[in-house]
Amino acid sequence: SSTKISAIPGDGIGPEVFQSVVDIFDATQAPVIWDVIKLSTKMEGKDPISPEEIEKVRANKVGLKGPTTTPIGGGHVSMNVFLRRELTLYANVRPCVSVPGVKTLYDDVNLVTIRENTEGEYSGKEHEVVPGVIENLKIVSEKACLRVAKYAFEYAAKYGRKKVSAFHKASVMKMGDGLFLKKTREVGKDYPMIGYEERNVDTACGMLVANPHLFDVMVMPNLYGDIVSDVCAGLIGGLGLTPSGNIGENNAIFEAVHGSAPDIAGKNLANPTALLLSSIMMLRHLNLFDHADKIEKAVHGVLKDGVTKTRDLGGSATTTEYTKAIISRL
Amino acid sequence: SSTKISAIPGDGIGPEVFQSVVDIFDATQAPVIWDVIKLSTKMEGKDPISPEEIEKVRANKVGLKGPTTTPIGGGHVSMNVFLRRELTLYANVRPCVSVPGVKTLYDDVNLVTIRENTEGEYSGKEHEVVPGVIENLKIVSEKACLRVAKYAFEYAAKYGRKKVSAFHKASVMKMGDGLFLKKTREVGKDYPMIGYEERNVDTACGMLVANPHLFDVMVMPNLYGDIVSDVCAGLIGGLGLTPSGNIGENNAIFEAVHGSAPDIAGKNLANPTALLLSSIMMLRHLNLFDHADKIEKAVHGVLKDGVTKTRDLGGSATTTEYTKAIISRL
Ligand SMILES: CC(C)[C@H](C(=O)O)[C@@H](O)C(=O)O
Ligand SMILES: CC(C)[C@H](C(=O)O)[C@@H](O)C(=O)O
Repeated sequence: SSTKISAIPGDGIGPEVFQSVVDIFDATQAPVIWDVIKLSTKMEGKDPISPEEIEKVRANKVGLKGPTTTPIGGGHVSMNVFLRRELTLYANVRPCVSVPGVKTLYDDVNLVTIRENTEGEYSGKEHEVVPGVIENLKIVSEKACLRVAKYAFEYAAKYGRKKVSAFHKASVMKMGDGLFLKKTREVGKDYPMIGYEERNVDTACGMLVANPHLFDVMVMPNLYGDIVSDVCAGLIGGLGLTPSGNIGENNAIFEAVHGSAPDIAGKNLANPTALLLSSIMMLRHLNLFDHADKIEKAVHGVLKDGVTKTRDLGGSATTTEYTKAIISRL
Repeated sequence: SSTKISAIPGDGIGPEVFQSVVDIFDATQAPVIWDVIKLSTKMEGKDPISPEEIEKVRANKVGLKGPTTTPIGGGHVSMNVFLRRELTLYANVRPCVSVPGVKTLYDDVNLVTIRENTEGEYSGKEHEVVPGVIENLKIVSEKACLRVAKYAFEYAAKYGRKKVSAFHKASVMKMGDGLFLKKTREVGKDYPMIGYEERNVDTACGMLVANPHLFDVMVMPNLYGDIVSDVCAGLIGGLGLTPSGNIGENNAIFEAVHGSAPDIAGKNLANPTALLLSSIMMLRHLNLFDHADKIEKAVHGVLKDGVTKTRDLGGSATTTEYTKAIISRL
């Protein structure tokens, strides 16, 4: 029996890279049915997805999302932030693994950023206290700290990881980041087989750049996770090559977090790898391991081979040529 | 005539690395007089420097500070944060320039992080709103945005820099980071010769790692600056090789921001380079360019030569041996 998956292709290059995934899933007969979610067209003053459509997303449980344009300014909330908040997708998981055939600073990076995904500076609470002074609330709750910490250790246990590092700035945010550390430390006690350490987020970023092998699984508050996951992606060739999953109690949305690249949209030039790798994470989440392994092998094969490369990787292949090369290896 | 400089040697390896600077300044007859500031011994519940001593720091205008231990938890404020706040040192300047002889990922990095240094999440305002939920205030004021933006463009103009990049997360913190962008953009209009761009801080960090040559002078809110300056330092060999200056209207404190390394304290093993480079920044701030150039040339000479290296750089020289090697090149 097939699983219904919410499909949110996104905008810009979104539809093209999403089509690539659909074609590859078809070719390997992955047992999923795509349920395309309608986005609100007039975003002014309202949410990017209507209450009816979000109910479909909720009912489907699992979804795949292509890149979406982030609105800057105005009253708009980004689609990513909206979905994470609406579905309480409390853990953002970003594995960062060196991709064969893509030459970067280090060739054996294997890191996982697990980011608290619902609060911190992302609570969206801001106001002008007196003219010219803005107060932005950073919220840290025991509940959110506990659940993301548990997820991090569970993830480490499940995938045979050796160490969890908690990144923080508790010397400055003594109460907020202090609470995050306290809860993570507490959870860690239940996983004696997994190493645990705490690092200042600034120091940790310097260490990551100088020697990424010092870390394994890293768990942290929202904003730090946003930055750290991009630092990690930068080490292995950018957001075009890194998958991402947003995990909640009942729902999970996997997404490509790179930009929607409006300049090359519709030109059949986009690289679908990030969304493909995200879809592979999704298949594993659905316990469809065979399909996941098969597609992953094909993607890695094509990248390692280096013959059919999209322009961002220095090649000249179109999105469809790259997709076909993967399909021919399935 | 000599200038009186507040001397805050710090703890751990602080006194040793500070002595190195004092010896080198003596050798080159730099016209400064050190005014050693007494730190409060019992830090419990009170500030790390007494009101009387802070008045001396204020009156001296310029100071040099070695590494200090950052208290975690309790009611303590870190010495760095205390001085920045107390003296309204609104701009934290961290040049990150590849050091000759130290092999790192890139060998021609030349970046300057200019960080807002008085507010943001560092305002220190936190409270528990309901049990288990902490609210931390991130403050962004027009005044603080304006002065740090002005400093960034003035710095770029003075040192012949080509571009200022403002890092932000205005898609999420629309009002707060939005205000920062608005003010920086406004100030930028007065400097038509200097390029200006805006980047999401997460994206920018990924770009910095993948290609640090994309940036020049970077200006940003407090917390981002804390992280970005460590990312930059990681690119050139760490905080042990990067200077820092805290600039205010009336005061300026130059400091080494690496840890106080209590494990090797008192063993004559510490590398004084970060404090030395900070003292060179200080000399330039005092318009003592000849002394600055002379010391800088000697430090670079010793590092490039690679014969007398401290342990952190893979050598076996003691702090005093390294200091003597520099003095012999003056
Ligand atoms: C688009 C933006 C709001 C989002 C974030 O900050 O979370 C993005 O940067 C990400 O990392 O998924
Ligand atoms: C010690 C700490 C409070 C400080 C900061 O976060 O500013 C340090 O990391 C720095 O960068 O100078």
